[in-house]
Amino acid sequence: MSNVLAVDIGGTHFRLGLFSEKGQRLVVSEGDTDASAGCEWMLERVRERAQALVANGREAVKACGVSFGGPVNYSLQQVTSLHAAGWSDFPLAGWVQETLGLPCWLDNDANAGALGEYHHGAGRGATSMAYITISTGIGCGLICDGKLLRGKDGMAGELGHIPVSDTGVPCPCGGKGCLETFCSGRAIEARAREWAERRPERVGRMFELSGDGEITARTVMTAAAEGDAAAVNIAREASRWLARGLLMVIRLFNPDQIVLGGGVAQAGSALLGLVRESLQDLASPTVGYSTQVVLAQLGNYSPLYGAAVLGWEAVRKERLLTG
Amino acid sequence: MSNVLAVDIGGTHFRLGLFSEKGQRLVVSEGDTDASAGCEWMLERVRERAQALVANGREAVKACGVSFGGPVNYSLQQVTSLHAAGWSDFPLAGWVQETLGLPCWLDNDANAGALGEYHHGAGRGATSMAYITISTGIGCGLICDGKLLRGKDGMAGELGHIPVSDTGVPCPCGGKGCLETFCSGRAIEARAREWAERRPERVGRMFELSGDGEITARTVMTAAAEGDAAAVNIAREASRWLARGLLMVIRLFNPDQIVLGGGVAQAGSALLGLVRESLQDLASPTVGYSTQVVLAQLGNYSPLYGAAVLGWEAVRKERLLTG
Repeated sequence: MSNVLAVDIGGTHFRLGLFSEKGQRLVVSEGDTDASAGCEWMLERVRERAQALVANGREAVKACGVSFGGPVNYSLQQVTSLHAAGWSDFPLAGWVQETLGLPCWLDNDANAGALGEYHHGAGRGATSMAYITISTGIGCGLICDGKLLRGKDGMAGELGHIPVSDTGVPCPCGGKGCLETFCSGRAIEARAREWAERRPERVGRMFELSGDGEITARTVMTAAAEGDAAAVNIAREASRWLARGLLMVIRLFNPDQIVLGGGVAQAGSALLGLVRESLQDLASPTVGYSTQVVLAQLGNYSPLYGAAVLGWEAVRKERLLTG
Repeated sequence: MSNVLAVDIGGTHFRLGLFSEKGQRLVVSEGDTDASAGCEWMLERVRERAQALVANGREAVKACGVSFGGPVNYSLQQVTSLHAAGWSDFPLAGWVQETLGLPCWLDNDANAGALGEYHHGAGRGATSMAYITISTGIGCGLICDGKLLRGKDGMAGELGHIPVSDTGVPCPCGGKGCLETFCSGRAIEARAREWAERRPERVGRMFELSGDGEITARTVMTAAAEGDAAAVNIAREASRWLARGLLMVIRLFNPDQIVLGGGVAQAGSALLGLVRESLQDLASPTVGYSTQVVLAQLGNYSPLYGAAVLGWEAVRKERLLTG
């Protein structure tokens, strides 16, 4: 018997865990990401926690899989992040191999989340599945016949950067009218700020839920689940845009399932209901589909489970190499 | 040595041909579809021409593949067309088997066109490819790792029915704001009619090219290729919408190639240039791709070549069944 190490590096949290070959989560170590502290700080946290997990594990740890919450160049096995300081073109898989002495496989969090849900979550038994993660931005991982679809440039699943409107604010990607400028966590927060400025008397509950700090996308969704009118308004608008994005996936892929993950989808239960309503509004009477839209089953751990799947892939590749 | 029979039943033309195993087109028989004459008339044309081809062919004909220019239920191997009289739920593959005594495999023209271009046209050598057909409506066939993507309900590739706007005319599908209501042949013709009504002094060249009859989408594209201002205006607007559709495919699939086929794409050379311009306008400085956008190489014959590929699939299935 042996295990793999899974690492999930996200913008707000990071998680490490040991997983069995059947995908059983044996032990987890989590912390808050200090995005301002940069790449070096993060790597140091990963190193110390990983070494502790490996040292204390009962079984041998054979390999490591990493989910990174940002753009990854899969074929080069390096981070390509343009936004986070120090991460640009960082060969993260190579760093793991050198630092921890473990063969390593790396992918972005949308693909990792898709692998996690497909093998161990809501997508079990499905042939094809789309995992859509709604957090700061919007990501998507697509699985067809059990295989992750990566595309020619490793850019498949970039749902968040499909231009859907000539209007709207500029996207962090530098494009305009991208889907995620209308329905990501960042977009929901911006809309809540507008409400707070223009109709402060309507955002009381959202402020309360936020501990009177900045209103976050999660507090908007929680307030919306309670029925708070302003929050429902914001959530409904975001859901309408999100439903358009889901319909792109449904019409083009027609997968068995669409699994919604990420912090915004999981806060409260408002989003799923509103998205389903919007999908009904947009339905065509003749172009039907039976694709199911469900919430992620592994919650915040979808990418970590997916990282474990990547870890086992690294084990198999290693076996092939060493005969 | 043996051959297969390929049949392409389209809304304006129908084509039959014999093909070798290497996809060589040996002989073709074509005619105009009389859509008002209905299903029986069409089947009679197919029967007589098919029997003549098979009787006169030098090699034995082993099987038949059929491309149908409308919705097909692939798993039931029947036409599902809701628009064309007599075709609803018609078991076309079974009819071929009974009438011509040939094992038969059936698919819609977008999927057949994709197979044709992938195996024998612009997509040769590609790993993944999207074939987008722009004729009366808009269809799309997606190939990943050499396999046609069909989806849970056989509805993958329904690019034309992705809702892209809250405004716009109702779609024949019964939905609203579908992509094809903005950039299909039908949409281009409707726009040309509006110009003819409101600015008759501007549509002279288009009328001329149409033989002074109704302006068709093809004549709009031909006039646009000549530089006719009104036609360029119409073609540019359609291209902008089409580019949005292409970007959905590029962002989600990131295929090696997008191949544009169908009568509108092939008329003149205006469309490809305008679509590429619009893709440039919509580009993101950080989310790149190297997907090529090219015209179909097999012209109007992409679906017929694809029908031949389906025919050879029928041969292989027959061999498996009979041992």
